[in-house]
Amino acid sequence: MDNKNKTTPVSTLGEFGLIEHLTKNIELKNPQTIKGIGDDAAVLEYRGKQIVVTTDLLVEGIHFNLMYVPMRHLGYKSVMVNLSDVFAMNAYPRQITVSLAISGKFSVESLEELYKGFQMACDKYNVDLIGGDTTSSMTGLLISVTAIGEVEKGKAVYRSGAKVNDLICVSGDLGGAYMGLQLLERENEVFKIDPKMQPQFQGYDYILGRQLKPEARGDVIEALKSLNIQPTAMIDISDGLSSELMHICKASKVGCHVYEEKIPLDFQTKKFAEELHINPLVAALNGGEDYELLFTVPLADHDKVKNDPDITVIGHIVDAAEGVKLISALEGKAIPLQAQGWNPLKK
Amino acid sequence: MDNKNKTTPVSTLGEFGLIEHLTKNIELKNPQTIKGIGDDAAVLEYRGKQIVVTTDLLVEGIHFNLMYVPMRHLGYKSVMVNLSDVFAMNAYPRQITVSLAISGKFSVESLEELYKGFQMACDKYNVDLIGGDTTSSMTGLLISVTAIGEVEKGKAVYRSGAKVNDLICVSGDLGGAYMGLQLLERENEVFKIDPKMQPQFQGYDYILGRQLKPEARGDVIEALKSLNIQPTAMIDISDGLSSELMHICKASKVGCHVYEEKIPLDFQTKKFAEELHINPLVAALNGGEDYELLFTVPLADHDKVKNDPDITVIGHIVDAAEGVKLISALEGKAIPLQAQGWNPLKK
Repeated sequence: MDNKNKTTPVSTLGEFGLIEHLTKNIELKNPQTIKGIGDDAAVLEYRGKQIVVTTDLLVEGIHFNLMYVPMRHLGYKSVMVNLSDVFAMNAYPRQITVSLAISGKFSVESLEELYKGFQMACDKYNVDLIGGDTTSSMTGLLISVTAIGEVEKGKAVYRSGAKVNDLICVSGDLGGAYMGLQLLERENEVFKIDPKMQPQFQGYDYILGRQLKPEARGDVIEALKSLNIQPTAMIDISDGLSSELMHICKASKVGCHVYEEKIPLDFQTKKFAEELHINPLVAALNGGEDYELLFTVPLADHDKVKNDPDITVIGHIVDAAEGVKLISALEGKAIPLQAQGWNPLKK
Repeated sequence: MDNKNKTTPVSTLGEFGLIEHLTKNIELKNPQTIKGIGDDAAVLEYRGKQIVVTTDLLVEGIHFNLMYVPMRHLGYKSVMVNLSDVFAMNAYPRQITVSLAISGKFSVESLEELYKGFQMACDKYNVDLIGGDTTSSMTGLLISVTAIGEVEKGKAVYRSGAKVNDLICVSGDLGGAYMGLQLLERENEVFKIDPKMQPQFQGYDYILGRQLKPEARGDVIEALKSLNIQPTAMIDISDGLSSELMHICKASKVGCHVYEEKIPLDFQTKKFAEELHINPLVAALNGGEDYELLFTVPLADHDKVKNDPDITVIGHIVDAAEGVKLISALEGKAIPLQAQGWNPLKK
């Protein structure tokens, strides 16, 4: 960390200078990228494949708090959020564009950190950064990422294909990102009162990582491919399990039964939830930002999924008339699920 | 304009409800769009074609002032800005995604107006709105549009192909959008002092339209195709002629001579510039937002372009050592051009 305190105002470079500075080291990796940054548009060529396109907007003060989110992590996560949507189509990401609106408080160095995050994500997932737009904002930072990926014709997985009796599966574990956020918020409050206090993070590295450095589950897409499983429906878990189950059930015109005791929760998620006296299940159902994959597979695929330690069968698809329900562990009661997930536009 | 005063807070709908409400009338028009709004990503299929991708960000207070820009016009223009980049690649736009960050001051009705603008643009240019993201912002409105288009392999036109002796051509006329902005700003200042004053717009409908409702020049791309002209380099004029000439010359490693008296200026542009005691040439060179096309063609194509009333030959490409120069009308002096175009990040 040389020159840690050196800050160069963005105004010294101007728009074109800044973009040139930030993007000068970008190398294209994919044969599908014919022309990247530097013209009116990027040029791509996908021979015989279908293309998926997705976009997400991250706004300072709404989606992230720069008091405790490092710029590099923010850049990485901004890309992950979009790659996760590409994987949720059973597709492989190949390109992203990144647009930024930045206020005067950001230095060239802080934007370099942000771009390092973009590039780390692109390098790890073999994605090309092919363009974007950079402009100023009245307040704070806004990041708009669009991701483009490819999928073989007939292999895209929609939300709408779930059938009665299909198994409902989820990758990884849930609720960790939400609990990580609670931890960061708590320590930030302590810091605001006494800046000399050291934050208490020990024992919670996993949930912190879930919040600050999520990974899009391309490995799960690979695993399904090698298990020769074509999911009938799929979605990524960005707004909490409840909300995503309802999306699949609505689009597929079905209902579901999900079993409380099957929902995968990490030890740290449970431990910190206990510390805060909240039910970790609430974090899993309504917390969001886990970026795991929720998918349905035909019952006949049970043997294929049951031995994958990273995939948990949490329930099954039922008739639409039966509703979207959580079966409680203790009494076996069926509780209707509601999408109480993260919703920035609802009071 | 029934229920003109009816305003519904966005919070009554929430994110999913709002998106569903605003996008429920969207119909897909292009066979290249397999799946539009409603899943984790849109799915596209371009058989045997190359794809172009471009993105632009419009920020309230930086790119537009809602004191005098109607939401519907803003929506239309946000799309045009992107389609213009697609055409500048010699490509045809097929899809857009639109992401919005909105503060609490916007009603459902005002966002409906914005979407009407998006849809009018999509309908006129035969483009599908295939997705986006909608979230809240701390202040004001931010619009991020990504446009996707297609071009036959080998037909994309880059900035980098201009050759010595090529003719430099421009479509339409320049400086009008800038003068329209000056007019709107002037009347807005008057309004702020005395809200009862009627704005003085008569005789200036053309430059107002240039600012408020620009059209991306797909017709010029069609004209070039029917004239059997493949430009050697092309760019759209969004930041002023000077800046765009410098982009082409830099990318093509050439210089240029552009003749002052050849630069096409509309009567209203000249008249209002006179009224404000400014040189209309400055509006053309540094004003921006004209969204005309600047392109170079081989000298041999002179006969093909010279009779098109919408295309003006303004100069020619020279050796890089001769620089990027404007030849003045009076004395024939060669004045080096500088990119003083609109640059939100430079002081």
